[in-house]
Amino acid sequence: MTALDPSRSETGATRLEHDLIGDRAVPASAYWGVHTLRACENFAISRIPISTYPDLVVALACVKQAAARANSDLGVLAADKAKAISDACDEIRTGQFHDQFVVDVIQGGAGTSTNMNANEVIANRALEKLGHQRGEYAYLHPLEDVNRSQSTNDVYPTAIKVAAYFAIGRLLDSMTVLRQAFADKADEFADVLKMGRTQLQDAVPMTLGQEFATYAVMLSEDIDRVAEARTLIREINLGATAIGTGITAPPEYARRVRDHLAAATGIDLVTAADLVEATQDAGAFVQLSGVLKRVSVKLSKICNDLRLLSSGPRAGLTEISLPPVQAGSSIMPGKVNPVIPEVVNQIAYEVIGNDVTISLAAEGGQLQLNAFEPIIMHSLFQSIEHLAVACQTLADRCICGISANREHLRRTVEYSIGLVTVLNPILGYDVATRIAQQALESGESVYDLVLRHGQLDRHQLDDLLRPENLTGQSSRSTSPVA
Amino acid sequence: MTALDPSRSETGATRLEHDLIGDRAVPASAYWGVHTLRACENFAISRIPISTYPDLVVALACVKQAAARANSDLGVLAADKAKAISDACDEIRTGQFHDQFVVDVIQGGAGTSTNMNANEVIANRALEKLGHQRGEYAYLHPLEDVNRSQSTNDVYPTAIKVAAYFAIGRLLDSMTVLRQAFADKADEFADVLKMGRTQLQDAVPMTLGQEFATYAVMLSEDIDRVAEARTLIREINLGATAIGTGITAPPEYARRVRDHLAAATGIDLVTAADLVEATQDAGAFVQLSGVLKRVSVKLSKICNDLRLLSSGPRAGLTEISLPPVQAGSSIMPGKVNPVIPEVVNQIAYEVIGNDVTISLAAEGGQLQLNAFEPIIMHSLFQSIEHLAVACQTLADRCICGISANREHLRRTVEYSIGLVTVLNPILGYDVATRIAQQALESGESVYDLVLRHGQLDRHQLDDLLRPENLTGQSSRSTSPVA
Amino acid sequence: MTALDPSRSETGATRLEHDLIGDRAVPASAYWGVHTLRACENFAISRIPISTYPDLVVALACVKQAAARANSDLGVLAADKAKAISDACDEIRTGQFHDQFVVDVIQGGAGTSTNMNANEVIANRALEKLGHQRGEYAYLHPLEDVNRSQSTNDVYPTAIKVAAYFAIGRLLDSMTVLRQAFADKADEFADVLKMGRTQLQDAVPMTLGQEFATYAVMLSEDIDRVAEARTLIREINLGATAIGTGITAPPEYARRVRDHLAAATGIDLVTAADLVEATQDAGAFVQLSGVLKRVSVKLSKICNDLRLLSSGPRAGLTEISLPPVQAGSSIMPGKVNPVIPEVVNQIAYEVIGNDVTISLAAEGGQLQLNAFEPIIMHSLFQSIEHLAVACQTLADRCICGISANREHLRRTVEYSIGLVTVLNPILGYDVATRIAQQALESGESVYDLVLRHGQLDRHQLDDLLRPENLTGQSSRSTSPVA
Amino acid sequence: MTALDPSRSETGATRLEHDLIGDRAVPASAYWGVHTLRACENFAISRIPISTYPDLVVALACVKQAAARANSDLGVLAADKAKAISDACDEIRTGQFHDQFVVDVIQGGAGTSTNMNANEVIANRALEKLGHQRGEYAYLHPLEDVNRSQSTNDVYPTAIKVAAYFAIGRLLDSMTVLRQAFADKADEFADVLKMGRTQLQDAVPMTLGQEFATYAVMLSEDIDRVAEARTLIREINLGATAIGTGITAPPEYARRVRDHLAAATGIDLVTAADLVEATQDAGAFVQLSGVLKRVSVKLSKICNDLRLLSSGPRAGLTEISLPPVQAGSSIMPGKVNPVIPEVVNQIAYEVIGNDVTISLAAEGGQLQLNAFEPIIMHSLFQSIEHLAVACQTLADRCICGISANREHLRRTVEYSIGLVTVLNPILGYDVATRIAQQALESGESVYDLVLRHGQLDRHQLDDLLRPENLTGQSSRSTSPVA
Repeated sequence: MTALDPSRSETGATRLEHDLIGDRAVPASAYWGVHTLRACENFAISRIPISTYPDLVVALACVKQAAARANSDLGVLAADKAKAISDACDEIRTGQFHDQFVVDVIQGGAGTSTNMNANEVIANRALEKLGHQRGEYAYLHPLEDVNRSQSTNDVYPTAIKVAAYFAIGRLLDSMTVLRQAFADKADEFADVLKMGRTQLQDAVPMTLGQEFATYAVMLSEDIDRVAEARTLIREINLGATAIGTGITAPPEYARRVRDHLAAATGIDLVTAADLVEATQDAGAFVQLSGVLKRVSVKLSKICNDLRLLSSGPRAGLTEISLPPVQAGSSIMPGKVNPVIPEVVNQIAYEVIGNDVTISLAAEGGQLQLNAFEPIIMHSLFQSIEHLAVACQTLADRCICGISANREHLRRTVEYSIGLVTVLNPILGYDVATRIAQQALESGESVYDLVLRHGQLDRHQLDDLLRPENLTGQSSRSTSPVA
Repeated sequence: MTALDPSRSETGATRLEHDLIGDRAVPASAYWGVHTLRACENFAISRIPISTYPDLVVALACVKQAAARANSDLGVLAADKAKAISDACDEIRTGQFHDQFVVDVIQGGAGTSTNMNANEVIANRALEKLGHQRGEYAYLHPLEDVNRSQSTNDVYPTAIKVAAYFAIGRLLDSMTVLRQAFADKADEFADVLKMGRTQLQDAVPMTLGQEFATYAVMLSEDIDRVAEARTLIREINLGATAIGTGITAPPEYARRVRDHLAAATGIDLVTAADLVEATQDAGAFVQLSGVLKRVSVKLSKICNDLRLLSSGPRAGLTEISLPPVQAGSSIMPGKVNPVIPEVVNQIAYEVIGNDVTISLAAEGGQLQLNAFEPIIMHSLFQSIEHLAVACQTLADRCICGISANREHLRRTVEYSIGLVTVLNPILGYDVATRIAQQALESGESVYDLVLRHGQLDRHQLDDLLRPENLTGQSSRSTSPVA
Repeated sequence: MTALDPSRSETGATRLEHDLIGDRAVPASAYWGVHTLRACENFAISRIPISTYPDLVVALACVKQAAARANSDLGVLAADKAKAISDACDEIRTGQFHDQFVVDVIQGGAGTSTNMNANEVIANRALEKLGHQRGEYAYLHPLEDVNRSQSTNDVYPTAIKVAAYFAIGRLLDSMTVLRQAFADKADEFADVLKMGRTQLQDAVPMTLGQEFATYAVMLSEDIDRVAEARTLIREINLGATAIGTGITAPPEYARRVRDHLAAATGIDLVTAADLVEATQDAGAFVQLSGVLKRVSVKLSKICNDLRLLSSGPRAGLTEISLPPVQAGSSIMPGKVNPVIPEVVNQIAYEVIGNDVTISLAAEGGQLQLNAFEPIIMHSLFQSIEHLAVACQTLADRCICGISANREHLRRTVEYSIGLVTVLNPILGYDVATRIAQQALESGESVYDLVLRHGQLDRHQLDDLLRPENLTGQSSRSTSPVA
Repeated sequence: MTALDPSRSETGATRLEHDLIGDRAVPASAYWGVHTLRACENFAISRIPISTYPDLVVALACVKQAAARANSDLGVLAADKAKAISDACDEIRTGQFHDQFVVDVIQGGAGTSTNMNANEVIANRALEKLGHQRGEYAYLHPLEDVNRSQSTNDVYPTAIKVAAYFAIGRLLDSMTVLRQAFADKADEFADVLKMGRTQLQDAVPMTLGQEFATYAVMLSEDIDRVAEARTLIREINLGATAIGTGITAPPEYARRVRDHLAAATGIDLVTAADLVEATQDAGAFVQLSGVLKRVSVKLSKICNDLRLLSSGPRAGLTEISLPPVQAGSSIMPGKVNPVIPEVVNQIAYEVIGNDVTISLAAEGGQLQLNAFEPIIMHSLFQSIEHLAVACQTLADRCICGISANREHLRRTVEYSIGLVTVLNPILGYDVATRIAQQALESGESVYDLVLRHGQLDRHQLDDLLRPENLTGQSSRSTSPVA
């Protein structure tokens, strides 16, 4: 990350720039200008610069490049200027000059400072390419040329969407890795019989494979939902300019800039049908965050389960063992803790909190614009990136190394009172209830009790209690109540 | 609503019923039995009985009816019993016996008490149809017959989904009414020029019609999202029984019961591919609630705008007038307040809070079941129903009667400094900034200033300032920067 | 609860009333009037009438009574009118006419409809006492007399605070009961040794008594915090009238009405120093809700623990047994679930969601008033009441009947690897780590391993492992590391 | 901030360290060791190192120093070791070695990695002071010596509390600055008459000074609440060690370490009465976060008001002007936006979201420990620090430069219909309502209408409408309804 106090970082030469408030000296070496300087002074909030999200910087460069090309096509920007701007953007897209994107991720002004920062960096780099000095805006102007036919109000949300699209791609990759890790364990544990639990009370048998397969299915469904939400954010409002009426933009601009941006990003972008609506609406971000919250809720549930099943080593459920990844205690020697699921839980809590932040910010939008998009952007990108890391970390450092305590698990089934459920359709609920109560009081097994009372013979019982019948995995073809 | 203290409502005869704890006297006239009685005693929480949600009661009857038919088809329930159960369910579906669904909406036990309540009412009504007395469970048993091949853990979430599907249908209807109300106003105000605002500061011109069209588009998009979420909750887990392994259910049961339930409800239900996953996963509810939150965020934003635009009558924006629906003050005579948007704001806040409740409850699920589905159900149904009322109320009692203060709006455009934006591409950002500052200081209009300085002649200016050009509604064909 | 559709409940005679919109027929038998009628029509939202909160109705009567007395003292209300109003309020305070408080708890208008409802009911009842007919407002007017020197904007928040003060009293009682239930169990289990756990992994020994004492301490602290928050809501703004400037109220009114209200309620009320601030500020409600959220978070944590410790009966931790209160399953005979902790968890989730709702509503207040106090009131009272029920229910139906599985608990300590921690200061962290690892791999006990390796003799070991030393209960006097 | 990938930062020599998993090469120049290395590899989550919170690093050093001194006092740590540890801690307290605190703020393990990082850095620096090499733990051990008598479970929460105490001090300073800024403006605007508004509708007159005084009072109250919450976090659990039973700590340790820590920090710390409770309870953090949320809700409300009152410049309320701090738009020349209030709104939304995160993390604690304290710490510190910046920024860059549009404000009072309220006690509500309606329809002023109808003479009216009477500022001495 880059220092956010741009004035302090300079000891040498400066150049003079001007805005509506007056003149300011800007470090001669800086690609950003007076608007960025003011923003850094006004918003020394989180000390996290926008360059923390390279996706956003790259997306801004893509947008500015597409705009320059569209403006050139339509004759409102000279070809040499357009080329210089486009070349500067190419450099940024490849990772250069990111350290010049210095404004705080949390900023007033609906993203204006971010857009200004991008305009200034691109203008100054383009000026160099045209053989001029940084700051000689008479030859190429940050607002009149780089920002031509644009407003923060269409550039900023479009850049967020493009950047989010990129970031979600990585999230989907991580989720897919995690799903596969669960699926692999489901295969490995396919034959490990254990007791299922409802409300933390012993219920009926299942396999550990089914338990892990469930997590794989959960991830699959979440992948589908995230992919859908990603599709919805392909709708952009470039061409809307200030409030959606397209003021200052040439008529064909919206179509052209979309085509160029789609080509630059490889995303099948769609221009919103109603640009006034699209410019003020944060609904797509709320929807996306809601889906990320859903993912978090389920990831957290899974991690709760993993921590529970691996509790022990002697006074817990001890059904599975998580791989040790670090010493667990500064005081208790030999203790190993489920630190990987724990960190995923915490990320989930963070994402759920971020969802509330995003909802509040979206609700706070007024009339033709939502002024609070910067905190939406920051919260959203934080959620996406942390979830991606969470899934990858969980897969690599925990799931892959899980082992099952097979013998212990089998014993819990054999001594379980829950077996009585399988007798329910044969003996009836009331009789079965009495057997269960008797087993619990006496400590006997249900199997022995039923045999002794002659309700069923050994052959019948053994058939009923075959794992395939208990776990529903092959009982689909033969009825346990025939 | 029905009194929730069932024991107190009876002064006369009782019958004796039995459960694993012991014997209890139940009012002879009650269709519910001992399990319901215990639940009412255990959960005197909200004093809101489940009959508050008739959709849920009807959905339970549909599920129980479908199960009886499937069980009969598969030979695990005698035909006469199945018919009696089915007939009882038909009566409930038409609205009878709802007052017998007395357990609290907030209850421990993952819905067991709701399922028990349904089993008992249906059993006792079916017993009557078979010529027996209430309580003579030897002839037809709430658990062994009515609940045959079922568990709370598949019945309850399935019933919630069916009921939510019904309720969302009404919500979609209300949203459609509201969308149309906005669209009608958009037409009515299509030619009313006004100043658009960003960050509450005057921006550039638009029409009041565009402002209302935006709200219609927002509703359209939300309708699409709600409809999608409705589609996702068609996935049911009947046949899963206790934990998804299908224990106690005949092999063909899941398919059969789905067919019967689809027929009974008219919903194209789908049986989940992985029943273990489906039984423990509350993801569909989190997703749905997330979408309802999105709707709320936007409804709240719209109502904030309406209250702002109608502020006044003399010291506010006074752009529109909302129809008066009641006296606004007990102390300030003649005051009329925007009470309808205000109540919609409050419902939105409630729904956003409910979403947090639902997220917490979903996250709290452990292993093979989510024990907290009752609060999910209650919060979800409250959100759906209150949102449906909100949309209908907002349309009927507010939007339909809105009028525009046309003259005032036109004047705000004529005197606006924001007009300078249209000159931006012609005069340049820096020159335009100086004109804006001069206009603000002198009180002059931008039009007069530009004319006086000779930057453009009257003809050019009038052309640039034609409403069609300003609002982007026909400027698509001719360039303002030619 | 009362039907909220007042027009439909009447088939007979009506009287004509008037407001700024026009004339309306009101049922002749109704004590409420035209303003209430409009409100019922405008806000058919939750169908929950304000009479659901008797505290609020009583508080409104107290406020109106105090106002009448203050007005009479100051000569702005005739003595006979003041007496009639006061007498009517006395009746309401004793529970009469609550069925006349019919407006919806969720309503637009910052509580105006609630205030109007109170004014009308009191006026009509007072008219009867003066020998007039309901509706003969020329003799005593709902607004000019009952509402004299008042505005909704001081009456409504004051009534909420008085009502909340009453309700919190009951909450504190329930919390005290629950604390005592935990304390009793702490005594009962004072000598039951068990393994403490951190991060769900076996840690070091403690007693079950310490575990339950912890819950008692938590309740104690929460009781203190709730009592503090209750103190803060004693600050009222009567005398502020519309916006805090006291317009229409006599100079001495604020002091007088406070004195009368303090006398009527027995609460040491304080008039806010700055009435303009007090009239618009919802901070006291946010603070109170924040404290309720804190209580919920901890109650939920406690219930999570109880459910975990009682998991089983054979494949769980099985440390304690909760008393069975109902059959746990419709399919699994004999299953008993922790339904009481589960319902408390759900109430906690509801309160946490309500806190978000209240925060949003408080944030939405604008300028001199918060228009969203009705949803704040409803959410707050729901939280208080449900928490009170939760504490009482948890104490009565769960904690009191908990038993310990003493033998099992002792065994978990004897076989624990966590014992190695006590050797840490003597043998060093690295040596102790190796012992722990060896014990885990070999299945041996730490005790035997240490003895065999001769690191300590039996006497030293036995001394170190005395329960008093392990659990810190008497080790305060003798050092385990001497 | 420091790079979090410690292995990559080294190209040269390494030393070998060992933990329960095995051997690892650590950069020879690093003060941290193998436990820190593992943690960095396991938790590459947010890429924000704990050194981002210097308060926390300093607090950790204070805790370790106090522990060393207490251990030395009690004879369980050699004096030379204690001195070396204490000296190392002094260096850290003055800001040295903060770049060695590299573990991620979001980490699994309840803070173990943070504690380990501190133990290792202090041990290695102390080793140097004793004339040894880094890594020569035989002479002074991170766990056996630096961590003596401690556990992460008492060190980490204690350090968080000490650090939070420091940070809240700065927050209180910023809030005090902001309060004074509001108070100054209240004085400046004491005589500026304006219309008060309820529900965004014109209500009754007040002064702009009263409006700003309200904000000062809000800050005062919030300062009181924050100061109270700060008092509550002085309760620490040092001496609890692993679960509160004090295992491995000498009997007098808890008292001694508290005394040393109080002396080192200047905070009047209190050792919790029940250390088992204190070790698992996150209630103090939930309480504190709830208070920060309250502050945020009100700050956000104030900023909403400021943005509303400064809306314009021509089509808004235009009551006040905020000082311009940067150009407002990349497309609309001359536009100035309320960017400072906007950034404060966003911080408020973030804090409200953080409160949900903290509630979830606190609720997730299980049995004897809350494993999720790291995310609580991170969210809490972020909230405190961002709020402190927000208050200072709002005061310096916005409030101080606000000016009033006095003439415009006076006119809104003169033409207001709300004046009719003052006539309410004299003419009655119904008559006053008719006057209000007539004024609204005809456009006449209330003053002229009343005069013309002869209801009051000019002298009476002028007296009633004197600003002092309208705004309640001197009407306390003479009755308007005499």
